[in-house]
Amino acid sequence: MRIDKRKNNELRSVTVRTKYLKHAHGSCLIEMGDTKVVCSATVEEKVPFFCKEEKKGWITAEYGMLPASCSERIVREAAKGKLSGRTQEIQRLIGRSIRSVVDLKKLGERTIWLDADVIQGDGGTRTASITGCYIALKHAIKKLIEDGLLAKDPVRDSVAAVSVGVVRGKPMLDLCYEEDSKAEVDMNIVMTGSGKLVEVQGTAEGKPFSEAALKQLIQLGKKGIRELTGIQKKHV
Amino acid sequence: MRIDKRKNNELRSVTVRTKYLKHAHGSCLIEMGDTKVVCSATVEEKVPFFCKEEKKGWITAEYGMLPASCSERIVREAAKGKLSGRTQEIQRLIGRSIRSVVDLKKLGERTIWLDADVIQGDGGTRTASITGCYIALKHAIKKLIEDGLLAKDPVRDSVAAVSVGVVRGKPMLDLCYEEDSKAEVDMNIVMTGSGKLVEVQGTAEGKPFSEAALKQLIQLGKKGIRELTGIQKKHV
Amino acid sequence: MRIDKRKNNELRSVTVRTKYLKHAHGSCLIEMGDTKVVCSATVEEKVPFFCKEEKKGWITAEYGMLPASCSERIVREAAKGKLSGRTQEIQRLIGRSIRSVVDLKKLGERTIWLDADVIQGDGGTRTASITGCYIALKHAIKKLIEDGLLAKDPVRDSVAAVSVGVVRGKPMLDLCYEEDSKAEVDMNIVMTGSGKLVEVQGTAEGKPFSEAALKQLIQLGKKGIRELTGIQKKHV
Amino acid sequence: MRIDKRKNNELRSVTVRTKYLKHAHGSCLIEMGDTKVVCSATVEEKVPFFCKEEKKGWITAEYGMLPASCSERIVREAAKGKLSGRTQEIQRLIGRSIRSVVDLKKLGERTIWLDADVIQGDGGTRTASITGCYIALKHAIKKLIEDGLLAKDPVRDSVAAVSVGVVRGKPMLDLCYEEDSKAEVDMNIVMTGSGKLVEVQGTAEGKPFSEAALKQLIQLGKKGIRELTGIQKKHV
Amino acid sequence: MRIDKRKNNELRSVTVRTKYLKHAHGSCLIEMGDTKVVCSATVEEKVPFFCKEEKKGWITAEYGMLPASCSERIVREAAKGKLSGRTQEIQRLIGRSIRSVVDLKKLGERTIWLDADVIQGDGGTRTASITGCYIALKHAIKKLIEDGLLAKDPVRDSVAAVSVGVVRGKPMLDLCYEEDSKAEVDMNIVMTGSGKLVEVQGTAEGKPFSEAALKQLIQLGKKGIRELTGIQKKHV
Amino acid sequence: MRIDKRKNNELRSVTVRTKYLKHAHGSCLIEMGDTKVVCSATVEEKVPFFCKEEKKGWITAEYGMLPASCSERIVREAAKGKLSGRTQEIQRLIGRSIRSVVDLKKLGERTIWLDADVIQGDGGTRTASITGCYIALKHAIKKLIEDGLLAKDPVRDSVAAVSVGVVRGKPMLDLCYEEDSKAEVDMNIVMTGSGKLVEVQGTAEGKPFSEAALKQLIQLGKKGIRELTGIQKKHV
Repeated sequence: MRIDKRKNNELRSVTVRTKYLKHAHGSCLIEMGDTKVVCSATVEEKVPFFCKEEKKGWITAEYGMLPASCSERIVREAAKGKLSGRTQEIQRLIGRSIRSVVDLKKLGERTIWLDADVIQGDGGTRTASITGCYIALKHAIKKLIEDGLLAKDPVRDSVAAVSVGVVRGKPMLDLCYEEDSKAEVDMNIVMTGSGKLVEVQGTAEGKPFSEAALKQLIQLGKKGIRELTGIQKKHV
Repeated sequence: MRIDKRKNNELRSVTVRTKYLKHAHGSCLIEMGDTKVVCSATVEEKVPFFCKEEKKGWITAEYGMLPASCSERIVREAAKGKLSGRTQEIQRLIGRSIRSVVDLKKLGERTIWLDADVIQGDGGTRTASITGCYIALKHAIKKLIEDGLLAKDPVRDSVAAVSVGVVRGKPMLDLCYEEDSKAEVDMNIVMTGSGKLVEVQGTAEGKPFSEAALKQLIQLGKKGIRELTGIQKKHV
Repeated sequence: MRIDKRKNNELRSVTVRTKYLKHAHGSCLIEMGDTKVVCSATVEEKVPFFCKEEKKGWITAEYGMLPASCSERIVREAAKGKLSGRTQEIQRLIGRSIRSVVDLKKLGERTIWLDADVIQGDGGTRTASITGCYIALKHAIKKLIEDGLLAKDPVRDSVAAVSVGVVRGKPMLDLCYEEDSKAEVDMNIVMTGSGKLVEVQGTAEGKPFSEAALKQLIQLGKKGIRELTGIQKKHV
Repeated sequence: MRIDKRKNNELRSVTVRTKYLKHAHGSCLIEMGDTKVVCSATVEEKVPFFCKEEKKGWITAEYGMLPASCSERIVREAAKGKLSGRTQEIQRLIGRSIRSVVDLKKLGERTIWLDADVIQGDGGTRTASITGCYIALKHAIKKLIEDGLLAKDPVRDSVAAVSVGVVRGKPMLDLCYEEDSKAEVDMNIVMTGSGKLVEVQGTAEGKPFSEAALKQLIQLGKKGIRELTGIQKKHV
Repeated sequence: MRIDKRKNNELRSVTVRTKYLKHAHGSCLIEMGDTKVVCSATVEEKVPFFCKEEKKGWITAEYGMLPASCSERIVREAAKGKLSGRTQEIQRLIGRSIRSVVDLKKLGERTIWLDADVIQGDGGTRTASITGCYIALKHAIKKLIEDGLLAKDPVRDSVAAVSVGVVRGKPMLDLCYEEDSKAEVDMNIVMTGSGKLVEVQGTAEGKPFSEAALKQLIQLGKKGIRELTGIQKKHV
Repeated sequence: MRIDKRKNNELRSVTVRTKYLKHAHGSCLIEMGDTKVVCSATVEEKVPFFCKEEKKGWITAEYGMLPASCSERIVREAAKGKLSGRTQEIQRLIGRSIRSVVDLKKLGERTIWLDADVIQGDGGTRTASITGCYIALKHAIKKLIEDGLLAKDPVRDSVAAVSVGVVRGKPMLDLCYEEDSKAEVDMNIVMTGSGKLVEVQGTAEGKPFSEAALKQLIQLGKKGIRELTGIQKKHV
């Protein structure tokens, strides 16, 4: 039995509160168990230089954690004066994941800034960020269309993410922090609403794993993402 | 008449939600109109070197704004690699204000980290941070006492803060962003529950002001802080 | 009796040596007791982007302390690679104070860089910087007019600053370092030659203060600034 | 047919020159086609604080590229003053991969610094770095044993890495730069000599991929790593 | 007798391998004894702003050391986030030395980036960098001429460098690391192929030296540079 | 004839004002023509780690320029967040030069911080800094002896510095800024009171120079330093 009494293939309870912020073009507060992330999408009517030639748009993501979001207070990266490797990895992952379902040409020459800020963390903050940023993005796109700035929705598919892992020999879905810190294998899966893979990042924590384990974890992730896709649909 | 129909000496609606975060020793979400700040107090069982000799405790504050908290997206200070002068001024102000009502000797050799993170900003974020951090602090102290780590409450008085200013020639209490950006005089007042001044920071924005104006603003601030003190009492 | 035998409402001896630097458009060495600050105003024929639209000029200030200016050697901020919060607060204060008496539209699309460098510090360096930078500014403006680059003086009023404080229960004018380090209340007052307030920054060091004390300190500051205004007049 | 006439499941020509550096405890120059990486392992007789309690050793990796290693000159990270997100991701990957086959307790309280410096890059620099750093590590361990500082080899298994990807619809092994830049799916696989997975990092570049593709890529990677393991054996 | 059995006026064995890198316009690996430096010259078709007015080209140099190049592992400057004073001194020296023999007007409005990266260091890395960068430069110029981008060679003379010093009272040519670390006087001499001085940098390490010693060292350096000039001729 | 009517072998007028600062252990304001440098020596009763084993003292130097010291305002290095290569070169040169005449063992386990801050610059600031810092050092040593902290003077000889150069084909002593900016050869010479060389740094600006020129410049420098040594004697 899991710490919080879930079955091994069960997601934590998920709640989404859209239009969470007054100023952003799109936003939501996504909660997966005790993990709470504010996601927002802000539109800027210019693009980085590398998009200019191709006359395409751009989507980029930034990620942060409030100092008191975790069980030990986190030193602010603004105070340290630099982003950790972990933060940069996560930012790049969110950006890549969301871009994989958007036709940047159709977005037009504008940038969408995705921000994922963890108010409270209990494992799976990066995957919750992806799932939530997709919702924020869709709200921002809707606003662009309503404002007459965009003719057609450039988003081809939905995208969501979930963590899976092997804990005490058992494959499990959507690890909370305590499970994550004991996991032998830790994997983040990003998948589209139509069931295609966008990212698979599996890491042996201490002990290398078999192909069979990889396969099982992918199946678990698929199940979780199917459910998250259903939840996303209700909020966009 | 003010933008949001308030009277000149009227505070915006204030709501406080305590125990907002699971991990911090004390925390709250304070809202003053559309300004929303997560405040927390985290205890660390060590002190900076300059407190060691005197065997006293320390209280320090940090402040940040989420990128999408304002009408124009704010570049993350973590990404820029340094804190702005404004952030540092605010951090120092919050720390000084809260320390002014605490007997650091009685706190014992520990540090309390106050974090004020603006989820949404509409003027008065630094004063809301002070008012909210006092509440978070009291919850943290309560927990220290309950946990048997502290014998007596080292907090001598309450402390709250409010902004006042002169807008189109009229002294006003608790400016929202739009008022603040047009104010001729802008003042932040920090006061204790017993009515003593802790900080007075008045700035002429463009046009120097008279002593009479200073006096009027102090009176307005006093009224606001009396009301905030009442609200604080209900939540600590 | 005060450390240096002054009366409580007495300024330290003030000397000003204008045209202290060969290259700057305007400059002076201002001494208030043992506090010595080199102030200069340098004109640059361009403006920051946020002034372009309004076709106005800009005035900005920077502040520094020589490493050996104080009783304990100060680590160079250039060596540490960042400006302290204190330095940034002071820089912003000097800039705001001087801008409050200048019509930036009439200055034309140029920037005036004010530099205040403390050669020796004995309390009151930020207020001496404001008083001295006003003199440097006026010399720079005079040169612009003589050179035919400016038709009319854009400076509407003079501006000066002084520190006041409560030391051992007594309100005092123009604190030296030793007094400042023991002060219960510490206040910096910036005022125009015509007696209007530009900034009031009062801080309780340890012990909150009453409105009556605030009033007394303002009166003391007013007296000091009247005298400084008289000295400024002789040097511009 | 591939650019360099290889078959889709064929590695580039691999050469390893061990003892490439005079000072490091272990080192090699590994070449995979035109990709050339200097790998070294340096032993330091102390550990980071988080290893002290557990009385274990540590292995950490750093990665860099010479400015002229690529077709466009790369700006030095030392000159920019910070490591890119990509560099940090690679450093973390190399460190994690090598640690997965070492018993850190048996290593003793010492740190092994792995350095991978790309002299020339043509795709697959991070995977070549892992394959080469394993060899450098083994030489350093051998020296520790010869010097009587270590009784038993703490390395449990070998580890190697290779890139695979889908290019113009075809799964391919060991992509060169030109193939990599056109790949629809890009995957890095890290595996032990005994055929267990250590890391799987698959990314859709533009177009999400199927589970079937994932499976094919894993098979290709497995074949490549089997061959690399054979080469490693000859050099340790 | 010297450590490596050389005579006091003897260079270490010098080998040069040109076209060492595939991508750079010009490159070589220069070895002087155990000192090994990769030198490259990369052409960029733009110039820094200060060259634009004069319609001239620019040559600039950067220098680095691999972490494992020396007997103690060197912390990466990219990881520390800043260049040491030593690195900057060397970079400026290489750039100045090479520019002294090039007619920048004739180079045309382009920049040549010289990179000197020390793979292994055993004294004299900065002088080897100058000698090697000259060779890399000449190859890059040749390529520009072959590609029809440049009509005439803008290089007026060759330039090479060597270290000399006084070790245990004896003037010696081309110090290795062990000699260098014991030298009483340490001097770097940069000279043209036609025997003119470009730089003389002599430093007393601990004990001031006489004019007579200066003269002797210059003679020794001259001899060494004559030989290096001969070697350069064979490789350009 | 030179710009300021000096003969080619003539120093600018030199004035030294000792005890310029109240707090430093030793200090002076040195002026050479329009170049004005505040030099100070501050004693700290601890040493950097690399001196501990040898139980010796340390002397280190820092250098800065006030923003308005030169004809074009200099951006503060504190604001840029890093020291330029030029500043670091000068700091290292001053430190090395002064250390060359001090017996660090006899200094005892303490550090002397030399600070050279250019109030106004007109060429030769680094050489004036060395000449002035020697004076500041001697005053600090005197104070240590008077305070009973040091038994014997650890300074073995005096040290001074001067610039020489070739301007329009003529060797000249002590270049002012305008001469320096046109010089074909630029050399800084550091010499002891007893006529030994400490540093010789000669640089061809554009055009390599002959050994004969080197010899002439050394003679000129010698003459200048003899005179500076005489001035130093009067002030220590």
